[in-house]
Amino acid sequence: MFVAFVGCFAAGTLPSRGEEPALSEAVVRAAAALREKALAGTHAFEILKSLTVEVGSRFAGSMGDAAAVAWGLRTLKKLGLSNVHSEAVKVPRWVRGPASGEILRPYAHPLALVSLGGSVSTAPEGIEAEVIEVASLEALKAVQPEAVRGKIVFFNQKTERARDGSGYGKAVDVRSRGAIHASQAGAVAVLIRSIGTDQNRLPHTGGMWYDDKVPKISAAALSNPDADLLAAEIASGQPVSVRLRISNRELGQAESANVVGEIPGREHPEEIVLLAAHLDSWDLGPGALDDGAGCAIVIETARLIAEVAEKPRRTIRVVLFANEEFGLSGAKAYAKAHEAELARHIAATEADFGAARVWRFRSRVAPEKLAAADAIAKLLAPLGVARGDNRTHGGADLIPLRAARVPLFSLMQDGSHYFDVHHTANDTLDKADPKDLDQNVAAYATFAYCAAEMNGGFGEAPPFPQKKQ
Amino acid sequence: MFVAFVGCFAAGTLPSRGEEPALSEAVVRAAAALREKALAGTHAFEILKSLTVEVGSRFAGSMGDAAAVAWGLRTLKKLGLSNVHSEAVKVPRWVRGPASGEILRPYAHPLALVSLGGSVSTAPEGIEAEVIEVASLEALKAVQPEAVRGKIVFFNQKTERARDGSGYGKAVDVRSRGAIHASQAGAVAVLIRSIGTDQNRLPHTGGMWYDDKVPKISAAALSNPDADLLAAEIASGQPVSVRLRISNRELGQAESANVVGEIPGREHPEEIVLLAAHLDSWDLGPGALDDGAGCAIVIETARLIAEVAEKPRRTIRVVLFANEEFGLSGAKAYAKAHEAELARHIAATEADFGAARVWRFRSRVAPEKLAAADAIAKLLAPLGVARGDNRTHGGADLIPLRAARVPLFSLMQDGSHYFDVHHTANDTLDKADPKDLDQNVAAYATFAYCAAEMNGGFGEAPPFPQKKQ
Repeated sequence: MFVAFVGCFAAGTLPSRGEEPALSEAVVRAAAALREKALAGTHAFEILKSLTVEVGSRFAGSMGDAAAVAWGLRTLKKLGLSNVHSEAVKVPRWVRGPASGEILRPYAHPLALVSLGGSVSTAPEGIEAEVIEVASLEALKAVQPEAVRGKIVFFNQKTERARDGSGYGKAVDVRSRGAIHASQAGAVAVLIRSIGTDQNRLPHTGGMWYDDKVPKISAAALSNPDADLLAAEIASGQPVSVRLRISNRELGQAESANVVGEIPGREHPEEIVLLAAHLDSWDLGPGALDDGAGCAIVIETARLIAEVAEKPRRTIRVVLFANEEFGLSGAKAYAKAHEAELARHIAATEADFGAARVWRFRSRVAPEKLAAADAIAKLLAPLGVARGDNRTHGGADLIPLRAARVPLFSLMQDGSHYFDVHHTANDTLDKADPKDLDQNVAAYATFAYCAAEMNGGFGEAPPFPQKKQ
Repeated sequence: MFVAFVGCFAAGTLPSRGEEPALSEAVVRAAAALREKALAGTHAFEILKSLTVEVGSRFAGSMGDAAAVAWGLRTLKKLGLSNVHSEAVKVPRWVRGPASGEILRPYAHPLALVSLGGSVSTAPEGIEAEVIEVASLEALKAVQPEAVRGKIVFFNQKTERARDGSGYGKAVDVRSRGAIHASQAGAVAVLIRSIGTDQNRLPHTGGMWYDDKVPKISAAALSNPDADLLAAEIASGQPVSVRLRISNRELGQAESANVVGEIPGREHPEEIVLLAAHLDSWDLGPGALDDGAGCAIVIETARLIAEVAEKPRRTIRVVLFANEEFGLSGAKAYAKAHEAELARHIAATEADFGAARVWRFRSRVAPEKLAAADAIAKLLAPLGVARGDNRTHGGADLIPLRAARVPLFSLMQDGSHYFDVHHTANDTLDKADPKDLDQNVAAYATFAYCAAEMNGGFGEAPPFPQKKQ
């Protein structure tokens, strides 16, 4: 008893009277050993290199996507996971064609731009129109419709750099829904300042959505320097005209797949600790950070734990999701196919925020199970990871698990530079640092091992507030 | 005498017995006042903004080049310079067309690449060949010809980051002469790792040259991440094939012009202090740093000095040279047209290294005139500028002045980040900091005012060593 108490104290859990501590002394020791082993060096960078060199870009439904599924299957098998298989997922098939644009007046310049993902094409000769600049969706509402009608709306909203990536959420609505609002106001096309924190002439793509009740208009993102230039011309007070040509194709649906591999639990194989990442990327680049790094982190985490002499009590399941970027197809398919076992998903986390170090550990567990999450947090502290709150939203692919009240966790990576390359051609292997990936694996391995081995689970996650419409 | 001595001591010149000090107390005071005025804020950034927004890219012989000449003339006039005029210069007319490439085997990837400036086209269907990697021109010489014949040579030479930009000089020969050497060895095309210190997928162009006695082969630069990828595929040990398509045009010669403006000297208008920059840029971007910043710095320097109540004794001449990038056409034309007055060029300097702060002051003056250069250095010291050596080469546009032994000066800017954007689409206004430009103007104004006002000149510059062949 004394020994057990010392053990849980070392892990920072003070059990309720008469309860077993979440983490036994032996589990704390084993988790710490895994953590230190990972810190000493992992294969994560090599796995990421293999994905970016042997596959590269892998947008939903593309040849690269199919190659990525094959890569995922052979990699998980090679690295010793069990029950490696794919689960079919239907994905929308949108194919980027050429996109170009230029300022015509008052000062002519070519523009570095890309179609937003899902944008319809312009007429072959393009659209030529005057540009009206607004700062946000809110600002657009304040503009008189006659000032917008027949024009190209330029959403000039900057993305703030932030460690927690919060600048993205504040800015991204002009990308995802700007075309709907602009079209409702009578605009003929949309240009946005890239949702990104860099100053490279490599524009950021990303998903955009239409409303079937509103005419679909083309939308493209300018690189930040090009947005600066367009804004400078507009600031001159002269009317500014732009020509925009976009040619994309909608090809219905295509086949893709979630890739799954496991370390079967030795005592409760039916209980699942889910380690998620997404296998797809945008089409502009090899998606090293988004989300090659996440794939490498969760794969290497599983490989490391699979090497432990005694397998954890619960099953650790790695899922590399299909088509996160363009509609969460894989996540929805998984939630549906695994509906019956979602109640036995005792924990889920997704690595989908690049390759920088983990700095905060957030949770979403039953209030009475906070001590268990805190105990894991104590084991993460030596990695420079602070304990965050209990209100994490988890990753995008975990959204369909919310209704089942699956406990969620976020090992938050430093996002200060993530949005420099996110959804651009610049998302390449060199942006990942091997030692930072090792720290990630150390954090994920610590978390996953503890969650799979601990006494009791995390209960039911608190429900999410209803979305305001 | 005592007062005069104090004055020159303040400026740090200890005159030889009986000689007048190079800088009188009054000149030191006036130069320091100019320096402080510039530090308090200049129009340099606004001038640069005007060039990049109203003109943008301005490659030799292009429409942008003509617009830049018009911009130069109207800007120099508007800012109060005298004798503003253009001097016609013939420039070669090379026009970039589409360029694309991809790795075909073992792992297919598109490549971010650009033609080197001057490259010939491939056949319309492109060149498809195996790639051989070499580290340098030297390394190529060590390879057996049969290993090169029929292949694409990939020069994988990294550019080191250095404050003085020395990494560029060490790497650039593969760009300028790689195609000659590779063709001599039997290669069918050349790919180089970009001569640049960034990791953006924005390849660096730049001048390349042919030898009429050697078959001309196409040459292109890969962005650094693409060079990493190609190297990784080659490192896999499997044969690597690439397809390259380049389509450029040679259109003979075109008209351009040097743009000239002056502050006529009040006592010796025939003696010239030359402030140079080059007006042309590469075609991929607006050339904000290369060399819009240099233009802005020398123009604003002249404007500031033109405001001084009493004009300097000698003429300060601003020359914005045509076509530095693709053959020094403007510099050669200037040296020829002004041959008779080169001996009266008492000092020349060129601003052509971006927009970052000046950190070192180098000279090339007669040994007996070092004290005069040192006196100016003392006035630059409060700007954080260290005294460099007396062996500067001056800027590229000053090369044709060497034979005339014109004293040369370099106000060396911090080049640590210059080669991140040099010769790329990324060379945009946002890369320049207004306060850093002010510091540049402070340094140039201090130098130019002193050189135009000082007692005596800088003698004859020491000759350059003969180039080894």
